[in-house]
Amino acid sequence: MHAFLLIAHGSRRAASNDEVRALANQIANEAEDQFDQLACCFLELAEPLIPDAINNLVEKGATQITLFPYFLAVGAHVAEDIPEAITEAKEQHPQVQFHMLPHLGKLASMPRLILDQLSS
Amino acid sequence: MHAFLLIAHGSRRAASNDEVRALANQIANEAEDQFDQLACCFLELAEPLIPDAINNLVEKGATQITLFPYFLAVGAHVAEDIPEAITEAKEQHPQVQFHMLPHLGKLASMPRLILDQLSS
Repeated sequence: MHAFLLIAHGSRRAASNDEVRALANQIANEAEDQFDQLACCFLELAEPLIPDAINNLVEKGATQITLFPYFLAVGAHVAEDIPEAITEAKEQHPQVQFHMLPHLGKLASMPRLILDQLSS
Repeated sequence: MHAFLLIAHGSRRAASNDEVRALANQIANEAEDQFDQLACCFLELAEPLIPDAINNLVEKGATQITLFPYFLAVGAHVAEDIPEAITEAKEQHPQVQFHMLPHLGKLASMPRLILDQLSS
């Protein structure tokens, strides 16, 4: 079973975390055929945290987890904190395959996404 | 003259700010026909700050400035700090038209952008 996990920073503002959850739901609705499970989690300040979200996916049967850092730039979070959390998850779930995607800000389609917005 | 101004948060990590500048350059290369000027600026922690960037665009002849908050979620920065900075800029440059776009995380095309990344 293939799961997709969107990892956001987390905010003290509940509305910001809800925006992330809503985005994850939108992706889930559009990606039913690509993934068996889809969830979001937070590095800090909101729940579920990364380890809890991964544990939950594995309990539900995930054998392959694709992780997507919903971050604009490579800071300490993308470069260190998230990889550390994934390393720990790998040790805890050696039977699960983890695949980390590039962070959002690095997607090659970002300039075009913004330009399309400008002309719409 | 129509200018586009991408507003990012700014980071203590120079590499993160350079990522934003590189994105602005990519957009500028693809959008030559849509805007006469294109620049990026930062809310804090990096330069140029919003007022300096706007002053610079106006000095170079901008009469219309489209602003794009490069933020993932509505926090205090998007809801309060950026609008305050723009209100001050309007008072300082009453002859210039300012147009604020929705922030990045709110773009309707975001789920599709992420899904395309997953299947590529």
